[in-house]
Amino acid sequence: MVPTVGLKVPHVDSADGTALLTDQYELTMLQAALRSGTAGRRAVFEVFARSLPAGRRYGVVAGTGRLLDAIEAFRFGPAELEFLTANGIVDEPTVQWLEKYRFTGNVWGYAEGDCYFPESPILVVEGTFGEAVLLETLALSILNHDCAIASAASRMVQAAQDRPLIEMGSRRTHERAAVAAARAAHIAGFTTTSNLEAGRLYGVPTAGTSAHSFTLLHDSERHAFRAQLDSLGESTTLLVDTYDVERAVRTAVELAGPSLGAVRIDSGDLGVMARRVRDQLDSLGARETRIVVTGDLDEYGIAALGAAPVDGYGVGTSLVTGSGAPTASLVYKLVARSDAPDEDAPMRPVAKRSAGKPSRGGRKTAVRRIDGHGTAYAETVSTGEPAPGPRDRVLQVPLVRDGEVIGRESLREARERHTRSIAELPPTAVQLSKGEPAVPTDFVDAGPRR
Amino acid sequence: MVPTVGLKVPHVDSADGTALLTDQYELTMLQAALRSGTAGRRAVFEVFARSLPAGRRYGVVAGTGRLLDAIEAFRFGPAELEFLTANGIVDEPTVQWLEKYRFTGNVWGYAEGDCYFPESPILVVEGTFGEAVLLETLALSILNHDCAIASAASRMVQAAQDRPLIEMGSRRTHERAAVAAARAAHIAGFTTTSNLEAGRLYGVPTAGTSAHSFTLLHDSERHAFRAQLDSLGESTTLLVDTYDVERAVRTAVELAGPSLGAVRIDSGDLGVMARRVRDQLDSLGARETRIVVTGDLDEYGIAALGAAPVDGYGVGTSLVTGSGAPTASLVYKLVARSDAPDEDAPMRPVAKRSAGKPSRGGRKTAVRRIDGHGTAYAETVSTGEPAPGPRDRVLQVPLVRDGEVIGRESLREARERHTRSIAELPPTAVQLSKGEPAVPTDFVDAGPRR
Repeated sequence: MVPTVGLKVPHVDSADGTALLTDQYELTMLQAALRSGTAGRRAVFEVFARSLPAGRRYGVVAGTGRLLDAIEAFRFGPAELEFLTANGIVDEPTVQWLEKYRFTGNVWGYAEGDCYFPESPILVVEGTFGEAVLLETLALSILNHDCAIASAASRMVQAAQDRPLIEMGSRRTHERAAVAAARAAHIAGFTTTSNLEAGRLYGVPTAGTSAHSFTLLHDSERHAFRAQLDSLGESTTLLVDTYDVERAVRTAVELAGPSLGAVRIDSGDLGVMARRVRDQLDSLGARETRIVVTGDLDEYGIAALGAAPVDGYGVGTSLVTGSGAPTASLVYKLVARSDAPDEDAPMRPVAKRSAGKPSRGGRKTAVRRIDGHGTAYAETVSTGEPAPGPRDRVLQVPLVRDGEVIGRESLREARERHTRSIAELPPTAVQLSKGEPAVPTDFVDAGPRR
Repeated sequence: MVPTVGLKVPHVDSADGTALLTDQYELTMLQAALRSGTAGRRAVFEVFARSLPAGRRYGVVAGTGRLLDAIEAFRFGPAELEFLTANGIVDEPTVQWLEKYRFTGNVWGYAEGDCYFPESPILVVEGTFGEAVLLETLALSILNHDCAIASAASRMVQAAQDRPLIEMGSRRTHERAAVAAARAAHIAGFTTTSNLEAGRLYGVPTAGTSAHSFTLLHDSERHAFRAQLDSLGESTTLLVDTYDVERAVRTAVELAGPSLGAVRIDSGDLGVMARRVRDQLDSLGARETRIVVTGDLDEYGIAALGAAPVDGYGVGTSLVTGSGAPTASLVYKLVARSDAPDEDAPMRPVAKRSAGKPSRGGRKTAVRRIDGHGTAYAETVSTGEPAPGPRDRVLQVPLVRDGEVIGRESLREARERHTRSIAELPPTAVQLSKGEPAVPTDFVDAGPRR
C-alpha cells in the first residue's frame, strides 16, 4: 500500500448532527411529497415489533433518552445541505425546506425501562408527513439497538439473581454502540460498565482493574500483583489465571493479606475453578475476598453458575450482541394520515397489505392489565382511547410536545422502572427457556380515534 | 413519567474525541505501571482471531481507515480528564501523563479489504506499554465490528454474482454503527447504501426512492406513483407491493411508460414474484425495467434467487448483524515486551497459559503463499522476518510510523484490493456451505525476532 499523497484527512465522524443518520428514501419521499402537496398532511407513525426474538418472553424498552437527544440534534446544517446538494440527492425546494427543518410534532412512547410485547406501540410519532417521515431511520436505529441490548441484559440480570453484573463488551461492538450498550445494560440492571465514555456521558458507574497483559508486562506474576496492589490498594481485583490459578491465588493473598478485594477468573470451567478458589481463599483466611468470573458468559452460563461461589459476573460479547438477537426487529409504520394539511382534517387509518407483513391501521394506545395480585395478564392495544381499570397502567407517556422534549428523565428512573416492570410480570416471564410472550397482546379495534 | 425539572440536557455524544472509548482497566493498568516503573517498557500487541465464525472460510479486514482516524483523535482533553479526576478513576500523576498523551509508536496491519484467516496477525501495535495498552478497546471495537460486517458482506457479494447489492440495514443497528457498516459493506463489494452519512463521510454512493408510507400517504397508489414520477423522474424505482403487485405494476408502466427504471418487491416469495413481475413487465413492453428485491435477504436468500429474473438486491438486517456473526472475535494480546524502557533492550516473547485460550508469544509477520496458478495455498505466520517466495505476498503494511499515520488510502483502493484478494483464494472459499478456512495457517516459530 502506497501512502496516498494529497488524500484529504477524512472528517472525523461528528455526532453533533444526526440529520444524515437517515436513509436516502426519506428525503426523496419528502421531495416528492412536497411537490405533490402531500408533505403537509398530518401523519401518525408507530414503532412496534411484530414479534419478539424466537422464544423470548418479553422485550425491554431502551434508547428513549438517546432518541430524545437525537431528535433535538436533528437539524440540517451547512455540511448536511452541501452534501445533499452536491450529490443531487434532493432538489432546491427540498433543500430550502430542510434548512428550516425542526421537528414540531408530538411523540409518545412506552417509558424507558418498561417491558413490551409483540405489537406493543412503543413509540408514536405525530406530525406532518414530511417532518415525521424523516425520523424513521434514526428512531429505529436507536430503539432497535438499545432495546435488543436491554432485552438480553434483563435476562442476564434475572439469571444472576442478586449478584452484580459488570458490562464489559465494548471491544466486541462498534465503538459508539458500545457506549449505548453500556447505558442500556445499566437500565436493565447491570451494576457497572467497563466503558469510560458511558460513565462520562451517562453517569453509568465504571469498573475495571487489569488484564493479562499487565501480568505479562512484569518480570513475574508476583511483581505484577505487587505493582497493582501498590497502586490500586488491597480492595482491587487481581486477575489470577495468566499462568497457574492456584499459585496466583496463593501469591495474591500472600501479598495483599486477607483483605484482598477480589480475584477474577477468565478461563477454564468457571464453576469448578470458583469452588477451588473459594476453598483456597477460605483456607488462606481470605473469607471476604470476592470471586468475579468472566469469559464468554451469557444468561445460560450465568444461570449455570447459580450454585457456584461466585460474587459477580463480567459479561461481554453476548451482551453487546443481544445474546443471539442483535436487533429488536422494530418497524416504523404509517398508521394514520389526514386527507389534507389542516389541523381539523379527520385522520384516516392506513395499512399496507404486503404478503406476510400485515400491519394494523389507526393510532394505537396501550394498557397493561394488572390483576388483583399485581400481576400483568394482558397488553391491550387499542385504536381507541385507553380505558384502564383501577390497577391497570396506561403505557404511553408524552415525550415530545409541539417539538419540545418533555419526557426527559434520569437513567436511575428508567432503571427503577425496569425493576418494577419485571416484578409485575407473571413468574414465567423470567424463565430462560424458550416460550411464548409472558403477557398476551389483545387487540381492540375501536374504530377511528378521531 | 413526570418530566424531570432541572435535569440538565445530556451532552450530545461527541465523536471528536475517542480517548474514553476505552475500558477502565487500561487506565488503571497504566497507573499501576507508571508507579511500578514498567509503563515505559517497549511492548508489542497483536490483533488476531483464534478462529473464524463457525463454518466461515475467510474473514475480511475492514475498519483500518477508521482506526487510523480514531488513533489520531485519541487525546485526553479537559472533558476527559475532568471525568477521570472527578470520579477518582486514576491518580494525579496518571492524569498528567494522559494530558500529554499522543501515540508515538508504530502500527502495521493487513491492508483494508484483504482476507484473513485464523491466527492472521491483522494488526501489530508497537510502542511503550503505556501508550499501546490504551488502544486496546478502540482497536478491537472498530476492527471487530467492521471485519464482521465486511466478512458477511463479502459472502453476499459472492452469492449475488454480478448483480448489484444495496446496503439498507441502518435501521437495524446502532445509528453510528450503521455508518461504519455501510462503509465496510462497500469495501466488500456492495454497490450502494441507503445511509446518507456514509455518503457524506466516506463517499459511499447512496440510493433510495420510497417506502410503503409514501403510497399510504396518498389517496391512491396511482396518485403516489404519479407524485414520485413527477418528482424523481421515470428512472426511479417504484415500490409495488403495498396492496396488489400485479395491479401496481400495471399502474406503474401505464404512468411511467416502458422506460420506468425499476420496480421493488419487498414481500412474499421473492423468486415467484420476480418471475411474475418480469413476465408482466415484458408483456407491457417494459423490457428494460429492472426488478429489485428486498426483505430479510441474507447470502443464502440471495443465492437462492440466482436463477430468478432479479436485477438487484437490497440487504438490511443480515448485513448489519454480520449474518449470524455480529462480531469478529478478534483479540488484542501482548506478545512481546522489553525488560527495560531503553530502545535497545531486547524484546522477550510473552504469552498467557489460560485454559482454552492459549496465545503464541513473539511479534508475528505473515505471508500469503501463492502457487503457480495464482492461488493462495497457505498463510505463513512467523515470529521471524517474512520470507516470501516470488509470487507470495507479504501481508502487513505500515500504517503508523512514530505516531504519524502513513497508511491512509481511499475506500476505492480497499474495495479493489478486496476483489483481488478474493480472486486469489481457492474456489472453495466462496462456497456458502460451512467449511474449513479456505487457506490453512502455518505457524513458523523462528525464535525471537530481535
